[in-house]
Amino acid sequence: MSIFEQRESNLRAYCRVYPTVFDKAINARQIDEQGNEYIDFFAGAGVLNFGHNNTRMTEAVVKYIQSNGVTHSLDMSTTAKRDFMERFTRVVLEPRNMPHLMQFVGPTGTNAVEAAMKLARRVTNRQEIVAFNHGFHGMTLGSLAATANSYFRGAAGVPLNHVSHRPFGSEQEGIASNLGGGLEDLKYLRAQYQDSSSGLTLPAAFLVEVVQAEGGVNVAQKPWLEELGRLARDIGALLILDDIQVGMGRTGSFFSFDDYDVDPDIVCLAKGLGGMGTPLAMNLVKPEHDKHWSPGEHTGTFRGQSLSFVAGSEALGYFENDELMQSVGEKTESMEQALSPLTQQVTQTPSGVKATVQIRGKGMIQGIDVGNGDIAKAIVEQCFSDGLLLGACGTGGSVVKLIPPLTIPDEDLQQGLAIVVNAVQNQLSNLEGA
Amino acid sequence: MSIFEQRESNLRAYCRVYPTVFDKAINARQIDEQGNEYIDFFAGAGVLNFGHNNTRMTEAVVKYIQSNGVTHSLDMSTTAKRDFMERFTRVVLEPRNMPHLMQFVGPTGTNAVEAAMKLARRVTNRQEIVAFNHGFHGMTLGSLAATANSYFRGAAGVPLNHVSHRPFGSEQEGIASNLGGGLEDLKYLRAQYQDSSSGLTLPAAFLVEVVQAEGGVNVAQKPWLEELGRLARDIGALLILDDIQVGMGRTGSFFSFDDYDVDPDIVCLAKGLGGMGTPLAMNLVKPEHDKHWSPGEHTGTFRGQSLSFVAGSEALGYFENDELMQSVGEKTESMEQALSPLTQQVTQTPSGVKATVQIRGKGMIQGIDVGNGDIAKAIVEQCFSDGLLLGACGTGGSVVKLIPPLTIPDEDLQQGLAIVVNAVQNQLSNLEGA
Amino acid sequence: MSIFEQRESNLRAYCRVYPTVFDKAINARQIDEQGNEYIDFFAGAGVLNFGHNNTRMTEAVVKYIQSNGVTHSLDMSTTAKRDFMERFTRVVLEPRNMPHLMQFVGPTGTNAVEAAMKLARRVTNRQEIVAFNHGFHGMTLGSLAATANSYFRGAAGVPLNHVSHRPFGSEQEGIASNLGGGLEDLKYLRAQYQDSSSGLTLPAAFLVEVVQAEGGVNVAQKPWLEELGRLARDIGALLILDDIQVGMGRTGSFFSFDDYDVDPDIVCLAKGLGGMGTPLAMNLVKPEHDKHWSPGEHTGTFRGQSLSFVAGSEALGYFENDELMQSVGEKTESMEQALSPLTQQVTQTPSGVKATVQIRGKGMIQGIDVGNGDIAKAIVEQCFSDGLLLGACGTGGSVVKLIPPLTIPDEDLQQGLAIVVNAVQNQLSNLEGA
Amino acid sequence: MSIFEQRESNLRAYCRVYPTVFDKAINARQIDEQGNEYIDFFAGAGVLNFGHNNTRMTEAVVKYIQSNGVTHSLDMSTTAKRDFMERFTRVVLEPRNMPHLMQFVGPTGTNAVEAAMKLARRVTNRQEIVAFNHGFHGMTLGSLAATANSYFRGAAGVPLNHVSHRPFGSEQEGIASNLGGGLEDLKYLRAQYQDSSSGLTLPAAFLVEVVQAEGGVNVAQKPWLEELGRLARDIGALLILDDIQVGMGRTGSFFSFDDYDVDPDIVCLAKGLGGMGTPLAMNLVKPEHDKHWSPGEHTGTFRGQSLSFVAGSEALGYFENDELMQSVGEKTESMEQALSPLTQQVTQTPSGVKATVQIRGKGMIQGIDVGNGDIAKAIVEQCFSDGLLLGACGTGGSVVKLIPPLTIPDEDLQQGLAIVVNAVQNQLSNLEGA
Repeated sequence: MSIFEQRESNLRAYCRVYPTVFDKAINARQIDEQGNEYIDFFAGAGVLNFGHNNTRMTEAVVKYIQSNGVTHSLDMSTTAKRDFMERFTRVVLEPRNMPHLMQFVGPTGTNAVEAAMKLARRVTNRQEIVAFNHGFHGMTLGSLAATANSYFRGAAGVPLNHVSHRPFGSEQEGIASNLGGGLEDLKYLRAQYQDSSSGLTLPAAFLVEVVQAEGGVNVAQKPWLEELGRLARDIGALLILDDIQVGMGRTGSFFSFDDYDVDPDIVCLAKGLGGMGTPLAMNLVKPEHDKHWSPGEHTGTFRGQSLSFVAGSEALGYFENDELMQSVGEKTESMEQALSPLTQQVTQTPSGVKATVQIRGKGMIQGIDVGNGDIAKAIVEQCFSDGLLLGACGTGGSVVKLIPPLTIPDEDLQQGLAIVVNAVQNQLSNLEGA
Repeated sequence: MSIFEQRESNLRAYCRVYPTVFDKAINARQIDEQGNEYIDFFAGAGVLNFGHNNTRMTEAVVKYIQSNGVTHSLDMSTTAKRDFMERFTRVVLEPRNMPHLMQFVGPTGTNAVEAAMKLARRVTNRQEIVAFNHGFHGMTLGSLAATANSYFRGAAGVPLNHVSHRPFGSEQEGIASNLGGGLEDLKYLRAQYQDSSSGLTLPAAFLVEVVQAEGGVNVAQKPWLEELGRLARDIGALLILDDIQVGMGRTGSFFSFDDYDVDPDIVCLAKGLGGMGTPLAMNLVKPEHDKHWSPGEHTGTFRGQSLSFVAGSEALGYFENDELMQSVGEKTESMEQALSPLTQQVTQTPSGVKATVQIRGKGMIQGIDVGNGDIAKAIVEQCFSDGLLLGACGTGGSVVKLIPPLTIPDEDLQQGLAIVVNAVQNQLSNLEGA
Repeated sequence: MSIFEQRESNLRAYCRVYPTVFDKAINARQIDEQGNEYIDFFAGAGVLNFGHNNTRMTEAVVKYIQSNGVTHSLDMSTTAKRDFMERFTRVVLEPRNMPHLMQFVGPTGTNAVEAAMKLARRVTNRQEIVAFNHGFHGMTLGSLAATANSYFRGAAGVPLNHVSHRPFGSEQEGIASNLGGGLEDLKYLRAQYQDSSSGLTLPAAFLVEVVQAEGGVNVAQKPWLEELGRLARDIGALLILDDIQVGMGRTGSFFSFDDYDVDPDIVCLAKGLGGMGTPLAMNLVKPEHDKHWSPGEHTGTFRGQSLSFVAGSEALGYFENDELMQSVGEKTESMEQALSPLTQQVTQTPSGVKATVQIRGKGMIQGIDVGNGDIAKAIVEQCFSDGLLLGACGTGGSVVKLIPPLTIPDEDLQQGLAIVVNAVQNQLSNLEGA
Repeated sequence: MSIFEQRESNLRAYCRVYPTVFDKAINARQIDEQGNEYIDFFAGAGVLNFGHNNTRMTEAVVKYIQSNGVTHSLDMSTTAKRDFMERFTRVVLEPRNMPHLMQFVGPTGTNAVEAAMKLARRVTNRQEIVAFNHGFHGMTLGSLAATANSYFRGAAGVPLNHVSHRPFGSEQEGIASNLGGGLEDLKYLRAQYQDSSSGLTLPAAFLVEVVQAEGGVNVAQKPWLEELGRLARDIGALLILDDIQVGMGRTGSFFSFDDYDVDPDIVCLAKGLGGMGTPLAMNLVKPEHDKHWSPGEHTGTFRGQSLSFVAGSEALGYFENDELMQSVGEKTESMEQALSPLTQQVTQTPSGVKATVQIRGKGMIQGIDVGNGDIAKAIVEQCFSDGLLLGACGTGGSVVKLIPPLTIPDEDLQQGLAIVVNAVQNQLSNLEGA
């Protein structure tokens, strides 16, 4: 029995999906200890936008360590933090005229979301947060209340109060689009907020992802998200955009919402922010809200991760010119082109209904919705056998999610796409044969 | 105006206590960009037990990076994780006959505590967690409910339910010992649990620190903690020991409770676990409880931090022989000896009452309780001026906390102790003069 | 200063609307101590369906008292209770093949609702109750959570959890119909319940009024309520009909839902049930749910109100033949006929928008929605001056509610209608003049 | 099968304890339909302080009904209410210099408690209410949170938050005195409130009974209750005295706390207040708190119960001179004298421990604590067989409670006491024989 089977908690999960032991990794490839190479369409759940062991970053980090740079510093001021903050301001905030301040939190997405929820409640003196069907925001008690998935919620052990869920206004078809989300729903919601006898309380914030990654690759309708922003403003609520999985260039621009006319009060960032998988999380907060924080009210030991600042600063370098984002645009097209034939495939939902496969996404996050978690699981398994790592997401795990590193070489991208297209076709024809 | 003043959240705190910009660090010294050196009695809030840029660790980490080891892997199996787990089993668990499994969580202490609370509630099908006056367990909504400090709690914005606080059974005198904690309190608590009309509900767990570090360096009475363990067992509740700040050798043994006759159901570890300030958090969970987890019910992106596994594995090397722990014993004596004269000093509480200074601690965490946050703050400031970093803790920040790296050279330790002793005497004589 | 001004709580309300001291009352008339008579279109907020001091009841009650019948008996068995229960079974339950058991609770509507909520949670082992915009269910903490009005909710002082509010499917136009309620909303709600990642939890019950009396005289659409019943059944939730204000014949049949194809799991009754204003409350509970109660789990001192049983039993006599219900049908027509011209009146909402008056209702509860609380208040005041008692309800108090005793003499009914029609016209023409 | 077995909810309880059907009642006797007479030491759970069908009251009530007095009026002003309020002011408030206002609520004790809790939270802008082990305050969700008994709490179906329970400072020995209540506990509680890191939040109110009637006839220690009042005042919390079961003369004075030096902010009254079992509930509220109510924020249909005002006003007549209270003093002595020999009896607790019987009480509420619910149940059953009605209370139902009407004739009192003393001795000697 391996040490994992002997001594690791039953909670472990991805090691069951990929039953091997990984040893090395470079850009879009992971290599196990037998030397088997896998193309990576999973990217550490959206962390590795710039690939494994990106040399720009590894070199900078090694140099930093070897010069005895401060590694751990909570929220003391350090030269590494200053470099990161200055670059972030210059590369991201100033070009967008964003007045937001940077709030560093414990280096996990859930911590960023928790801090955003706290602040929204503080600023508005309200308690309710509105989140959305299929939203994913983390596992700690505050963010878990905003996470929609009942499997995760079921582990809370206590009621998850002070958050309500509304249907998400999904751009494309799919299960998320059958739940009533859209402009009309916001019209009624607005009317209910205006009615003092609706039983609804005014929310502190709307907490929403532009692309629901874990939720099944659901992309927010532009008019819906923009109206949500107006509704928030009109009723004195904050708009919190959780860009943890799809920010940092994933959709073809630094933020996933750069092409939406929205003005978020708080943006939550983590995952790719630390550059090479080194943990970092940060909220961007408008100054008029940020001033409601008193020093040290929300702390965390690992806020000042210098290795993450160093690698993350290198990542920001990718946004100093158009090269990477242009390449993301081209690769997006490749992905869409390769996947589009799949929409003619017929699948079968768990209830036995026949349906067609749906492709959804924005930029280099694309989902193949086969409407059935068992089929999706079989596709993921076949891909692993064929040398491709990817995962399933969405209700019941029915959506195969493709999130390769943005820096993936074209050959790897094409090869990976071929593997997954073949696996989908194969599993669906198995179905037909059955 | 610096970038910190321009663009960092008002939440920032330690950078206000230490108004300089740090650049380098080595073992027990931090160096700012002007080249000023500071002896470090703060150790990254208890993270840097093995010093800044411990070369055992930096070399291993650099080598790992340069060999393109997998840096980020969620909970996939990796060779780095296997090495860490095998070493932890061999060095820590097996010698103690601990059957516990390792559950890796998001790399922050609060995440470990949240996971422990979830599991205790799941296992017992109960909701209430009993925590203690002056306890500190984190900032996310679940762990914050267990944190006692009203400043932190006040930022929640929603009620903190399902946790109650009882007085801590403190070994030594000090404010914590005036709140009623002790064996008699547990006798009454037991009686109330046995009375079906007490209005109390049986708890899922008792969540307790052996040494309340943030809470003012309060050390649990041995008989009290042992009786708490018996009470937990008798009423079917779990005993969760939060050893995040004082585990990993801080008190002279790997766990702070090694010299107590307790059998914790869950132990929470983080901070020092990742070795060199690289983030890592883990719960040790008895197998009969762990089996209540289903795969992936509590996830987190940054669970598989290979750099932390590599550095953390080096840290475990310090427990393969007695050398470091013996040295901790000797340094503890040095600290106690240097500080003991301070107990003759007279201080003045905020209400104007005269009192004597109290020294408390266990191993290389020692607190100087001056009974007054303003005085403690002045001491910290003077120390900073004199080239020593340390912080205040406890109710109102009235306790000066000394937690140097365990690897601190004797000269640095002596020099630091001299600075703090002088600062205390100086500030208290100022008081007398006033 | 009167004793009321000197010593009654500032909470008092109706005494401000009707600034006089009442002394006597008979059928549909209340008489103040100066001898002024008022026609009563308020009926004690729906209690006095059978008029003030109905002689059938007063004689029975006096006889009972004079024979030293047990007045107060908690839930001991008494001859008075037996008579009531037997008559209720024969007159109400058996003709409808209702297998329901009678659960007597503290003699207030809120107590009935609290008991129903408890039982639904017990039966389903779920916590959430779904209530509706504009619903009114009581003032104690459990029922208050289901009450929609923010003025009442604002007095709770603690969060009102475990209840969510959905738009009510209103039959007729009016503010309630602009909030999105209806069949389509239930379709989406059903889809969300079926989606394990919607973030919604399955509810223990839907708690709904067939006619929202306090909420503005909103009558449930037949297809909507029937679909709600099917949805409840399909997802294992209970359907609780709160018939406290509009049961006991108010709508032309004993229950307000007798003409809907619904099969409620629990029916809450109070108000008119005790006959002459003597307090009584009761839930009708299906046996398969009732068996989840253990003896005495929900108690209350004043459950065994014999005077209420005696008077209430006389009230049941009105349902042993068709006479009263036929007369209610005729009076309903008189009311509708008298009020219908008002729908041509133009009113002005608080936001300045012109709108037409709306008439809504079912049987002998009719509402005149003038869309503006100030206008409604002026109408109520004018009516009082002109010798008619009635009240306002709905969001912002914009609906004038007419609920005369079912036993009101035709002359009183006509005279009252003339007063209110005149007052509406008068106040609206004032408006025009302004 | 009787209608009760066929159609009454399984929740029914007292009818199981007294398996007969009652028909008539007069003063301290209830008569079943077979003509069997029972002496009443139960008094409708403390309602019938002035006996069944007290002729002063029945005559006044009949006269009122026959004159067509307004029976039901919500909170309109009526002549009946004026008479009651004036008499209450003159007889109760003015002699005590109590400035309190009268707030009429729905006519149940639970409603009074709910209103008091709301107001305390409103006044203090705090959420927590501190109640006590063995306290009983009602069954609706707000008051249930303050009720200590786990059997009742278990029916809530949702968490009972925002109330914590502390040990009650019991005057006499008994189970309640083993839970840690007393002056020392208050000293520690005060210290914890003063410590900003205790994790405790300042409470809105302390809610306490002077005699815990349902909780086992536990009488508050004078110094403890007085210190509790001081603590409340010092920390800005309200003192709410729940005098629902033991007010109205039960302990030898109008209020049970007349001989304590306490100054309650709110006093809750119900049960006996309505005179002859006619429901009425009222809070006495200090004007500086009452002004925080806005009109109609806490309503209830049956607040204006004129029959209760009429009968209740007659009850107040008993306090216009000393006659009744003097007689209560004498009867208290009779009770104590008759019961004191029982303290020499040996009983056996459920865990098999031998113990002696304890007698506790104040005035005409006396409890015989036999330490064992099964024995107490057998005593109650034997008493019923022997023609005496009484009930059990306390944890596990181990205390036989004696609360005869204050107006009980001496012969009935003596006869009842003889029955119960004999039953106790008999059941305990049975035990010995076993």
